Amino acid sequence: MSRRIRRTPYTGRVEAAGVTGFTVVNHTLLPKAFGRPVEEDYWHLREAVQLWDVGCQRQVEITGPDAARLVQWMTPRDVSQARWGQGLYVPVTDAAAGMINDPVLLRLDADRFRLSIADSDLALYALGLALGGGLDVAVDEPDVWPLAAQGPRAGAVVAAVFGQAVLELPFFGFDRFAFGGRSHLVARSGYSRQGGFEIYLEGFELGPALWDALIEAGRPHGIRPGSPCLPERIEGGLFSLGNDFDRRNTPFELGLGRLCATDGSVACLARDAVARIAREGHRRELRGLVFGTAPAPVCAEAWPVWQGDARAGEATSVAFSPRLQANVAVAMIDRTAWEPGTRVAVEVPGAGRWPGRVSAFPID
Amino acid sequence: MSRRIRRTPYTGRVEAAGVTGFTVVNHTLLPKAFGRPVEEDYWHLREAVQLWDVGCQRQVEITGPDAARLVQWMTPRDVSQARWGQGLYVPVTDAAAGMINDPVLLRLDADRFRLSIADSDLALYALGLALGGGLDVAVDEPDVWPLAAQGPRAGAVVAAVFGQAVLELPFFGFDRFAFGGRSHLVARSGYSRQGGFEIYLEGFELGPALWDALIEAGRPHGIRPGSPCLPERIEGGLFSLGNDFDRRNTPFELGLGRLCATDGSVACLARDAVARIAREGHRRELRGLVFGTAPAPVCAEAWPVWQGDARAGEATSVAFSPRLQANVAVAMIDRTAWEPGTRVAVEVPGAGRWPGRVSAFPID
Repeated sequence: MSRRIRRTPYTGRVEAAGVTGFTVVNHTLLPKAFGRPVEEDYWHLREAVQLWDVGCQRQVEITGPDAARLVQWMTPRDVSQARWGQGLYVPVTDAAAGMINDPVLLRLDADRFRLSIADSDLALYALGLALGGGLDVAVDEPDVWPLAAQGPRAGAVVAAVFGQAVLELPFFGFDRFAFGGRSHLVARSGYSRQGGFEIYLEGFELGPALWDALIEAGRPHGIRPGSPCLPERIEGGLFSLGNDFDRRNTPFELGLGRLCATDGSVACLARDAVARIAREGHRRELRGLVFGTAPAPVCAEAWPVWQGDARAGEATSVAFSPRLQANVAVAMIDRTAWEPGTRVAVEVPGAGRWPGRVSAFPID
Repeated sequence: MSRRIRRTPYTGRVEAAGVTGFTVVNHTLLPKAFGRPVEEDYWHLREAVQLWDVGCQRQVEITGPDAARLVQWMTPRDVSQARWGQGLYVPVTDAAAGMINDPVLLRLDADRFRLSIADSDLALYALGLALGGGLDVAVDEPDVWPLAAQGPRAGAVVAAVFGQAVLELPFFGFDRFAFGGRSHLVARSGYSRQGGFEIYLEGFELGPALWDALIEAGRPHGIRPGSPCLPERIEGGLFSLGNDFDRRNTPFELGLGRLCATDGSVACLARDAVARIAREGHRRELRGLVFGTAPAPVCAEAWPVWQGDARAGEATSVAFSPRLQANVAVAMIDRTAWEPGTRVAVEVPGAGRWPGRVSAFPID
């Protein structure tokens, strides 16, 4: 614990709830476990509702006359149609279409955007672009702290605190709702595939009250503190910067080619690169794997994936699925093997090659 | 443990040596403790030699025809005189002179620079500036992994592995030395004030062999695995990004005004800002504090510092000094109280105001 690794408005509550481990994302604490088996958390997330301290999803706010131009520079997704009320998942890249982050973009106004980011200092990239290009914008990290309610009963819980209107939000939709005498963005989103909401709390000091209100409202629904669940997010095809991809990968390799304007119509840094890749095709892409029947060890490095005697890619995130009673993985798979159903083997360090198959996402 | 939080070439050795805790810097593991009391590590560092896995000091390499121009954009320190063999400590700022990082700059060639960085994604800032400004450079993270030998006997240990010539390096001097059939930069530097060296290992796979060679050479000198020592670095006036300063602070507030070209002669982003601040003066600056006689609790948030009834600043890093038998702190202190010797009191959460005094660095 030090000031360098920041606490969120919810960290005190998470500690009081018996957190047993943290990790660090964006220089900020992210709870990892609450002393229960992963299997128990997995089923609970699928059947009830959990409250996640995702304050580490830091917010980068870009405002000013050139804000839209700067945001468009950063992503090959056409953001000209971005509007109040509908978030967009945007790959952020360098000029070679190398992935730098994969935030959710919220357009708050014509000249005001927020990016809810994965684990890299996207504010520094935006700031560098703005200063280098002489753009008239401000790049800041506002006093905004996401809190997620995830799971099939999340709607009932969030509605009890913010009102029934939150239930009318479409997927990735957002609007302002009142709490603690202030208004906050609430979005139908989150880092699970079980449904849920993210509350973008405005004002650090309101954090404990918001946490308590949601826990209280969630009591009849069996709410528990939780955190992103590795087997669930792998099954759901939710990728992780640093685990599953980095600057050496393109949006196409993440299966995000469909989000990219490849016809040169969009003024992004990667315009030429995405047009070229779309024309020439890409040679590998993230896929699901299902392999083995005993739990694999912790995957702290990429594990080779084989198709017969040929190297066919590498597994980048691995967990044991309580539902499938098999290991599931996110893996970067070569074109030759990426068809769902392809038989492959995963090389588990010290434990040989475990047979399995390629899957689309979500892994069913 | 996950791929997102990177292991260094030395992590396996550190685990075998009984590490009891890690922190995360630059998305990379940094060992924090080896099961011994801080007091014991503190004296050992001052009297013998320790081997520190500082692979988390990631390297940003900037190469190309515009490399010197880009590096100068980033820092108000005049880097035109930077040359092979002599590292420079450079504040990196935004246009308002807000601190973004405080790396050590190594100039490898006319158009090739390396920055050994503190905990922020400086590569993204450099990349943004380059792309925004249309500069002809490449920004990369090379396969280079710092390892530090620190303490009064570090020279004997490093010389036993790399040769006696390392002992001729001046403070912050560097040169190439052979190990494992390759050459590596070795510098007289490190994050302690006890003297020592940093080896910029080129090639991840050589890490265990380098670790083993230094441990073996250090045996007669009582070498131990270690890590940056909080009371020692506070006494030494070595500041920490995220703990003691961030983008809200200027180089002047870190006492680095003397490094800044304030006469407008240098083409940095902060040129106007540093000239203005130099003209108008700054109102607060990092100082040492010595306070209390019982160990203070862990400082995970800024603690108010009082001069009588007036708020005089805040303590940002705190530790108990085994040598002084008092707490020492890095603190951002207002001009009215920053004179060494000034009587102040530190507000320790839940424990009242503890009397103390302001000190220059190093704290003697």
